[in-house]
Amino acid sequence: MRRIGTVRSPYRAAESVPKGLGTKHEAEGVLEIEAEFEAGLQDIEGFSHLYVLWVFHQAQGYELFSVHPIDPQPHGVFSTRSPQRPSPIGLTVVRLLRREGRNLVVLGVDMVDGTPILDIKPYLSSVPPTELKRGWMTEAEKRRG
Amino acid sequence: MRRIGTVRSPYRAAESVPKGLGTKHEAEGVLEIEAEFEAGLQDIEGFSHLYVLWVFHQAQGYELFSVHPIDPQPHGVFSTRSPQRPSPIGLTVVRLLRREGRNLVVLGVDMVDGTPILDIKPYLSSVPPTELKRGWMTEAEKRRG
Repeated sequence: MRRIGTVRSPYRAAESVPKGLGTKHEAEGVLEIEAEFEAGLQDIEGFSHLYVLWVFHQAQGYELFSVHPIDPQPHGVFSTRSPQRPSPIGLTVVRLLRREGRNLVVLGVDMVDGTPILDIKPYLSSVPPTELKRGWMTEAEKRRG
Repeated sequence: MRRIGTVRSPYRAAESVPKGLGTKHEAEGVLEIEAEFEAGLQDIEGFSHLYVLWVFHQAQGYELFSVHPIDPQPHGVFSTRSPQRPSPIGLTVVRLLRREGRNLVVLGVDMVDGTPILDIKPYLSSVPPTELKRGWMTEAEKRRG
């Protein structure tokens, strides 16, 4: 695994990243790609959305159960986005606003400033909303009204 | 990074995995989770779709440019899903058919049999199709008619 770049984000600490089910991540940030990987960005401007794979670099160890900020009931870690996971990889879909050389200016960052980026992939398809079930999150939303 | 499980797939070799833009991945497979991580699957049955993060374990090194099977023109590796990437992580959205103990029976595998799984996350939201641009892939599709 190699670090291909670094996230520049308005969030200085994990505590400042908005959490919770209804949260819309609309913060602007920059994906700063290392010079040696810049050539790999060719043609990326044509995509509206990107997957960013990154490291939960501040996470310590992992837990098989996780308590989500919006639901007091614990859930299996693979049913959540908890940072304390066996492989501490984060995944975020961002909207590409523009490319400036080896910097990608994006909307929708939910990582802290300085987060190491492992990979970027084009976001290609989406599951039709009518086919999507969101498990315990739907229940938790209902309980909160 | 830890291997949390293994993909069981009908594809024995990378060459057998269907490729190309219009390809629908509808193969059934099983995500076999290691016993020590089974507790982390709690409540996963409530989700219709999952992200699977896995390792391109057969990939050798990386290339900053990649030629896609359906387009003779090379593209930057981060504009493609090429296995030869600096961090050889694959990402697949699968549909969860059912859970059988520590095995998740899923639809939509595009990994070869024996692929190491790094992480599983709930698939929560989708980008509205009207907002999605697919870059060079749309052009390549048009050229093929």
